[in-house]
Amino acid sequence: MSIYVHKYGGTSMGSVERIRNVARRVAKWHAAGHQVVVVPSAMAGETNRLLGLAREIAGSGADRRELDMIASSGEQISSGLLALALQAEGVQARSYAGWQVAVHTDKAYTKARITGIDSERIMADLNAGRVVVVTGFQGVDDDGNITTLGRGGSDTSAVAVATAIKADECLIYTDVDGVYTTDPRVVPEARRLNVLSFEEMLEMASLGSKVLQIRSVEFAGKYHIPVRVLSSLTDPEISLSVEMKSGTLITFEEDEKMESAVVSGIAFSRDEAKITLVAVPDKPGIAYSILGPVADANIDIDMIVQNQSIEGTTDFSFTVQSNEFQRALDVLNREVLPKVGAREVIGNEKVCKVSIVGIGMRSHVGVASKMFRTLSDEGINIQMISTSEIKTSVVIEDKYMELAVRALHKAFDLGDTPATAE
Amino acid sequence: MSIYVHKYGGTSMGSVERIRNVARRVAKWHAAGHQVVVVPSAMAGETNRLLGLAREIAGSGADRRELDMIASSGEQISSGLLALALQAEGVQARSYAGWQVAVHTDKAYTKARITGIDSERIMADLNAGRVVVVTGFQGVDDDGNITTLGRGGSDTSAVAVATAIKADECLIYTDVDGVYTTDPRVVPEARRLNVLSFEEMLEMASLGSKVLQIRSVEFAGKYHIPVRVLSSLTDPEISLSVEMKSGTLITFEEDEKMESAVVSGIAFSRDEAKITLVAVPDKPGIAYSILGPVADANIDIDMIVQNQSIEGTTDFSFTVQSNEFQRALDVLNREVLPKVGAREVIGNEKVCKVSIVGIGMRSHVGVASKMFRTLSDEGINIQMISTSEIKTSVVIEDKYMELAVRALHKAFDLGDTPATAE
Repeated sequence: MSIYVHKYGGTSMGSVERIRNVARRVAKWHAAGHQVVVVPSAMAGETNRLLGLAREIAGSGADRRELDMIASSGEQISSGLLALALQAEGVQARSYAGWQVAVHTDKAYTKARITGIDSERIMADLNAGRVVVVTGFQGVDDDGNITTLGRGGSDTSAVAVATAIKADECLIYTDVDGVYTTDPRVVPEARRLNVLSFEEMLEMASLGSKVLQIRSVEFAGKYHIPVRVLSSLTDPEISLSVEMKSGTLITFEEDEKMESAVVSGIAFSRDEAKITLVAVPDKPGIAYSILGPVADANIDIDMIVQNQSIEGTTDFSFTVQSNEFQRALDVLNREVLPKVGAREVIGNEKVCKVSIVGIGMRSHVGVASKMFRTLSDEGINIQMISTSEIKTSVVIEDKYMELAVRALHKAFDLGDTPATAE
Repeated sequence: MSIYVHKYGGTSMGSVERIRNVARRVAKWHAAGHQVVVVPSAMAGETNRLLGLAREIAGSGADRRELDMIASSGEQISSGLLALALQAEGVQARSYAGWQVAVHTDKAYTKARITGIDSERIMADLNAGRVVVVTGFQGVDDDGNITTLGRGGSDTSAVAVATAIKADECLIYTDVDGVYTTDPRVVPEARRLNVLSFEEMLEMASLGSKVLQIRSVEFAGKYHIPVRVLSSLTDPEISLSVEMKSGTLITFEEDEKMESAVVSGIAFSRDEAKITLVAVPDKPGIAYSILGPVADANIDIDMIVQNQSIEGTTDFSFTVQSNEFQRALDVLNREVLPKVGAREVIGNEKVCKVSIVGIGMRSHVGVASKMFRTLSDEGINIQMISTSEIKTSVVIEDKYMELAVRALHKAFDLGDTPATAE
């Protein structure tokens, strides 16, 4: 007997019929003798409907405490409905709101972080033979206010619950059947990965493969909880042994199960904009003088490149998300340019970021150079480069994005034929 | 400065525009220097939508704990929305779910009773200048489970909150402008009552004038909280002094404000069925032998009449609600008839109940006989009679209901010309 946490997204919970399918699937696991906690999202569309009502009344500046009162209701409804559906399948089940468990969070309404989860109530029910439904996306702060965890927060709820009850695995059921070497819409030959390390998953997720909320992966990595991403669209009655091995397992164990590929996948994002300060006087503290005001304006900075100093000045470039591009330019022109004495600020929105990700890079030289050569062969100019132990990212002109992804996917042999070490 | 509790029903909260109107009205009271707690219902239709989903999944026998998880969400949403609308009016506001206040209840899911309300959090916010929104219809039991109070339960929430914070008045805003001498759809001359005693309101409510949940009136009567029923459909900007005197005040004070009428109103219900056991041997314990099995089957019994014994046998009649009529007959034929040895069981669904209600009856003789004479003058045969200190009820053939109500309304002078004492 093992302990599993199942998480089902809004699409999987999107109708009465789908909720029944979720219940059938969970009942199958329960009937096999496993202890199961289920974390459902709100029914698809419900959160948007509720926040739409709030926006109609309060515009975009609504009090976030009240937004959380409103938005958290969607998950409470789907949790109750799922408990009823489980009971209809003959399974004893009980649902709990975040505050009932309790799922403790900090006070950052609409994007709270989980600080701890009490396991007593869940374990007591599991040991009494019940399936426990824990409402996702929500928690409670130290003063008893309801908080929510931000979009996709139910993933984090599930992993946090799995941590609290020491689950053997946390299964994230979603509308794709796993994590792919890259987006199959761009590269039809993209292949599902059977196993992936947490670090690789973090890079893949943060770089645009939106399968899992990134925070949930961090959480799972920190507490060593194996996470499996798998499809909720299969027949709920498929054999348990098949289902238990399906999807993509995200794990810490770099053993024989780990794939031997140097590069596991190609991530990409069009949601980038590049900003360059030209001819900045090169003196100590220059990076902080430039990026401090940008960070103070709550603008996230991604890649940062400072070129070699030439004749006492340097070019300083960084990327921001496209939707914060204009605001970043305003801050720089207003607060930074007059102070640091650069010649000018140049912005470019027509860029994208393409990254190769893989733990194998750590021990293999020449991976980055192979990437650069591949892009060069396609006539693609590289504007910025950033490297870490398990990824190499480049900024290129956005019109070349698909071409670059396809060429790299082929060069690193990620297609349907299993990859081999370089 | 006084403390008021406002309660708004589902129709008053039925759209974003209506929620804005509620916020404007509350803001007006707040601006006049009063402390206000608002108890909103779910947006009209929302509770039915949620329970409909639950019924689709679980049929009619759904686990009531889970039903309360689901149904309580509707009020939580409208509370958050109202707090946002108040803030948009420039009023500091904060909403609380039942468990946050806390509103303590027993464990009777879907029809829980309030056992106490903590006032600390509400009073702290009021004293900080905030309007407090307390989610209606819901509470929490001693084990931290969410409970709901049954249909119309927000009325009871409002009165209970008013009791806990020692409010000066509890205002129930609804889609009618007060309590009438009888249903204006039956008697166009029906007149709104300015003042009514709790006992009269109890009789009016339980007899079919569905303005207020009866439990809320009991609660208000027990704790001496003045309750005003008034319209939420007036312009929210009408003068506060006019609004404060509008509607119908339900109060304990039998002073000069109380109307001097002997009879305050005419209540009626078509939802009745009469059952008679013919020729029951008249011996001690006979009432219990008959009604015990009926009560054990959870069937509510209303009027009971036992006729004078003739030659050792008696006819025993009582009424039940129409929808329990067949079940009551089954119980009697199966369990009672063989045991008590009555000749037969006769049932009649084509009956209705008409009642005159009024505190004045206590000190005025001849009120009941005037009722009987009036019905006799109209050729209406009385099948059963039941009397109490403040009401007299008769069961008559249902086709005469409107005729009887109109005749009695006229006979007791309840029309637009103010009534005078007999």
